[in-house]
Amino acid sequence: MKKWKRSARLVDMTQQLLREPHRLIPLSDFAERYQAAKSSISEDLAIVHEVFQQEGSGFVETVSGAAGGVRYIPRAGWERSRETALRLCRELENPSRILPGGYLFLSDLLGDVSLVREIGLIWASFFHDREVDAVVTVETKGIPLAYATASYLGVPVVIIRRDSRITEGSVVTINTVSGSSKRLGSLSLSRRSLQEGARVLVIDDFMKAGGTVRGMIDLMSEFRAEVVGVGVMAETLTEERLVEESASLATVTDIDVKQNRIAVQLGSLFR
Amino acid sequence: MKKWKRSARLVDMTQQLLREPHRLIPLSDFAERYQAAKSSISEDLAIVHEVFQQEGSGFVETVSGAAGGVRYIPRAGWERSRETALRLCRELENPSRILPGGYLFLSDLLGDVSLVREIGLIWASFFHDREVDAVVTVETKGIPLAYATASYLGVPVVIIRRDSRITEGSVVTINTVSGSSKRLGSLSLSRRSLQEGARVLVIDDFMKAGGTVRGMIDLMSEFRAEVVGVGVMAETLTEERLVEESASLATVTDIDVKQNRIAVQLGSLFR
Repeated sequence: MKKWKRSARLVDMTQQLLREPHRLIPLSDFAERYQAAKSSISEDLAIVHEVFQQEGSGFVETVSGAAGGVRYIPRAGWERSRETALRLCRELENPSRILPGGYLFLSDLLGDVSLVREIGLIWASFFHDREVDAVVTVETKGIPLAYATASYLGVPVVIIRRDSRITEGSVVTINTVSGSSKRLGSLSLSRRSLQEGARVLVIDDFMKAGGTVRGMIDLMSEFRAEVVGVGVMAETLTEERLVEESASLATVTDIDVKQNRIAVQLGSLFR
Repeated sequence: MKKWKRSARLVDMTQQLLREPHRLIPLSDFAERYQAAKSSISEDLAIVHEVFQQEGSGFVETVSGAAGGVRYIPRAGWERSRETALRLCRELENPSRILPGGYLFLSDLLGDVSLVREIGLIWASFFHDREVDAVVTVETKGIPLAYATASYLGVPVVIIRRDSRITEGSVVTINTVSGSSKRLGSLSLSRRSLQEGARVLVIDDFMKAGGTVRGMIDLMSEFRAEVVGVGVMAETLTEERLVEESASLATVTDIDVKQNRIAVQLGSLFR
């Protein structure tokens, strides 16, 4: 076991904490790894904590007691969250996104790993006090966002399928009606994917009337899971809303196909 | 502008580098941010580099010249990669994964953010010299793996759909035949998702005869994209293989439904 210099310890600690958000690391693990006194480790952690706080990426939480330790709690500052949302709004305003039927092309945004990561950090921050056990989404486009969010919350991702697959085993299926287009559909989730009584955060990419999100909430009740939050990247303004409480990063107020113009403003999270 | 202490600088640099793998950060950005001489910054970066190397998480690359700077190149060490793959093998051997028809339940593994992150790091390391422009996968279960890989490579994710959706705009569709079950299917990708001539890395969760991966490769040729690598989390042993060159983390050598036993060994990456 070699002895670490403080400078090397700081780099290594930062890396370890960032790698697994919310995972509790016993102080003794650090003390042993670095062959250093706990008091020195605590000083190091105070430095890491201070920088994290200052840079709006979260903080280092100390849990005292025999089962104690430290863990990294991601928390985006307000400024950083707002910047990300404004960047998203600008991207959404690009008229080349308009597709036939007034749909918006979003796949490129959801393939942008850095944007998706920042959005995940926002959701993890906003829902930090809801004691989330799992992040739930529906295939396909919501998956990257759900994954990024779960990563920052340190919880698993659960993916609802639009049709039941043989590779899912025994599933619970419910039928859904799209609130905007009145199309019929179904949502399925394998029985073993979610524990009874789990507290779940529902994440999706785009919400119109909210038929899909409503379906996810209904499916969750079949699992006796509690939906403790709903976050959507973007939503449209609509009169008939099937979901009461949801937070969005961007609100698309108008898609003018003739004028080739999309109007977007900051979502409900910022109002 | 306040002056940063070296200890705080080290934490902040580590965090900045880890956040965006492969992004080139000009030394002058650091010098300005920390109000420090470039020589001090270089010393700091050497410390970060050394710890990253030692801990098997990659290294800090310095690019000289006017457009130069530094960037974090993730690179999992052999030991760390092997440990992850062995953990995966143990998980796959759990007989409760056996589903009717000899399928395996994998959704829990693909929902495990820490396992998925480590697998992404392995792929990013293994294919690091292929100059990948995008990571391509097919919905649904491959998405978390593709996302994690792309995140470490600093490139976008492109998701192929099993049926064309109105929200994708103009798409290219090809028909596929499953090599194992001879079922027909189709794969679609929106035209604007991929640039002509792009170098793509194909990632998927599970491969039997390889019909789906073969389909992805064929679809890529429609985009004149070059497939520079194929990585699958797990594969089965099969006589008829539709894909020549692929790397796997785990090989399922036998699924014995009667005996309720799954035999798994390290995949082709480790042979």
